[in-house]
Amino acid sequence: MSMISINGGVCAAQGFMAASYAAEIRKKGRDDMAMIFSKEPCTVAGTFTSNVVKAAPVVWDKNIVASGNTVHAVVVNSGIANACTGKEGMDACKAEAKCVAEQFGDTFSAEAVLVASTGVIGMQLPVDKMLDAISGMIPLLDSDEAHATMASKAIMTTDTVNKEFAVEFELDGKKVHIGGMTKGSGMIHPRMCTMLCFLTTDVSISKELLQKALSEDIVDTFNMISVDGDTSTNDTCVILANGTAGNKEIVAEDADYEAFKSALHQVNATLATRMAADGEGASHLFTAKVVGAKSKDEARTLARSVVSSTLTKAAIYGRDANWGRILCAMGYSGASFDPEKVDLYFVNDIGKIAVYRQGVPLDFDEDFAAEILGYQEVTALIEMNEGSETATAWGCDLTHEYVDINADYRT
Amino acid sequence: MSMISINGGVCAAQGFMAASYAAEIRKKGRDDMAMIFSKEPCTVAGTFTSNVVKAAPVVWDKNIVASGNTVHAVVVNSGIANACTGKEGMDACKAEAKCVAEQFGDTFSAEAVLVASTGVIGMQLPVDKMLDAISGMIPLLDSDEAHATMASKAIMTTDTVNKEFAVEFELDGKKVHIGGMTKGSGMIHPRMCTMLCFLTTDVSISKELLQKALSEDIVDTFNMISVDGDTSTNDTCVILANGTAGNKEIVAEDADYEAFKSALHQVNATLATRMAADGEGASHLFTAKVVGAKSKDEARTLARSVVSSTLTKAAIYGRDANWGRILCAMGYSGASFDPEKVDLYFVNDIGKIAVYRQGVPLDFDEDFAAEILGYQEVTALIEMNEGSETATAWGCDLTHEYVDINADYRT
Repeated sequence: MSMISINGGVCAAQGFMAASYAAEIRKKGRDDMAMIFSKEPCTVAGTFTSNVVKAAPVVWDKNIVASGNTVHAVVVNSGIANACTGKEGMDACKAEAKCVAEQFGDTFSAEAVLVASTGVIGMQLPVDKMLDAISGMIPLLDSDEAHATMASKAIMTTDTVNKEFAVEFELDGKKVHIGGMTKGSGMIHPRMCTMLCFLTTDVSISKELLQKALSEDIVDTFNMISVDGDTSTNDTCVILANGTAGNKEIVAEDADYEAFKSALHQVNATLATRMAADGEGASHLFTAKVVGAKSKDEARTLARSVVSSTLTKAAIYGRDANWGRILCAMGYSGASFDPEKVDLYFVNDIGKIAVYRQGVPLDFDEDFAAEILGYQEVTALIEMNEGSETATAWGCDLTHEYVDINADYRT
Repeated sequence: MSMISINGGVCAAQGFMAASYAAEIRKKGRDDMAMIFSKEPCTVAGTFTSNVVKAAPVVWDKNIVASGNTVHAVVVNSGIANACTGKEGMDACKAEAKCVAEQFGDTFSAEAVLVASTGVIGMQLPVDKMLDAISGMIPLLDSDEAHATMASKAIMTTDTVNKEFAVEFELDGKKVHIGGMTKGSGMIHPRMCTMLCFLTTDVSISKELLQKALSEDIVDTFNMISVDGDTSTNDTCVILANGTAGNKEIVAEDADYEAFKSALHQVNATLATRMAADGEGASHLFTAKVVGAKSKDEARTLARSVVSSTLTKAAIYGRDANWGRILCAMGYSGASFDPEKVDLYFVNDIGKIAVYRQGVPLDFDEDFAAEILGYQEVTALIEMNEGSETATAWGCDLTHEYVDINADYRT
């Protein structure tokens, strides 16, 4: 399959528009609301946090995805998460959605509008400000790259860079697209999906297969990243498909479905990696690649445990090839394995160095190891020598900046 | 039962001696080896790490505890953990134990000597230096308080204070004692037991009941603390009972057993709390007390999740009453509960403040909250309103000092 990456983020797929707006939800001077809109009704699939404490917008969106309704718009705000906000929080979701529908002359219902929030837990949204912002934002909707980028910036909280990505490929002789935007960068340890991720596509595909492709792919993408081990109350990943590309609708797990899934994976993996690299305070993208494992599940468990280990993350920050912490994190992961079969390497563009082989610590060049760990991306390559399954997890280091950000996030 | 706390640590129980020595394992200028000795043979019970990667001394000690042998001595070193060291690491354990037995004229076997290590993973122990140290340390063995304290200091790594505690109570008309020493303060997230904890008692008790009392008590003490979420490869908690007090041997779960268990709990809970308070870089002892839970297991799960949450720990450091992170950590803990029934408070000697009640965030005095959180000990009191079970977990905040310590621990 030939696939190219293109600009345009959530507007890369035909028929999608975006906008952003400064609603001044918690701070002035920056856009803190965003909107995605499709005039054509969209098939929608979504995955949401497994946290027992679910934010109001998660409850709102889950109901819509479960209902089978088509969707026209997504409204997102940063600043306040609208979590732990009781009935008032649910009323806020409904007011937002209703406002969007009214502004479009009730050509669709409030239940065709998804909402999402990120920010401080336990504060109520300033609904009046937000309804004014929605009214102000709708006339700004546009399908160009610039508006997609503005939207991806408006949903940032402690992110340092916006994250958007899109691909173009062919299905049924038609050029089709998948694009997306996502935000981190704290409270990231997705169990079902990531913080906030919005994907758009002009592919025509059944709701069932759209959900299947999304649900299967997040297991190896967004569910494989961790910034701090805290699974958010707001994790949301939705994909809107408006069918505008005109391909024959995908209704079976055929070659077109596989091509779609492969492209979706490319978008999700790229966005997930960027989230990990932009983890709160991060100075390194830290990847754990497990190969030769007995089972896929064990490979995933091992890789996730390594990138989630606080002590390992601190060592990566300090450019310290303290590989014992990696083996320790594998050991408490819950996976069963024989430590005396494991080989361990650090590897990246600078080079590759073996530090542990089959139960025995190796003498290695500490200076070269520090040089490898000094680079902004580093991978712990873990050869289990017990089978043929692999998995990759992405995380980041634990830095002073992380502590600064989170000791003083709310006040 | 009348029980008083006394000085003397591991030497508080009759018939136990201790010593420490500077073996210069990784650094000069401080004692880095310690020894506990009882001329009378000791019944021994122990609990060890659940990490799949087990340090060599854990393997050595587990075999001895399982064998039913009595024990005379424990040799401990800091600096190097003797984990991930293969056959050479196991040989080092044996050499240490054999050396102790030889120095005592082979009046007991090497299998009557426990060994324990803490420090860097993946380095080999300098065995020759350590055997010299053992020979030098044995003549120094003494039963006074000062030697117990020296031993408790020699096992410290990044601990800032030594941790010892002892109690005296009566059994069968005899004065009996339980004492102990422990060390943290990183890689602390015990699943079976804590980092290193050595308990001594002069109580006469069967091996079976000694193990039962220890195994049951750690569930609510050492297993309820977390510093960084990393379960060590070396976690070891052993108790040596030499029967010197002369009480009628405890062989049934009678009143004497209950008295013993209650005293053991007092010692373990005190040492566990001190470990949490002295977590790496900690400026706060952070306690989560869950009350009104449906089941004991759920209460424990919830309390542990809260003190383990990276984001909550950073907020405590910043004196930020960011209670949403607590509710978030409860939500992803795996426990099922209704967030709309929960009441949440911060409480300590300064005062008590309600921040969340039954699904609704409360307006509270931020200045007063900051004052409460400014104190060195703070408890999140969590009322589930779903039952009558309780649990308490202890942790600490996440600070810049933590990052400093762990970014540069090994090199």
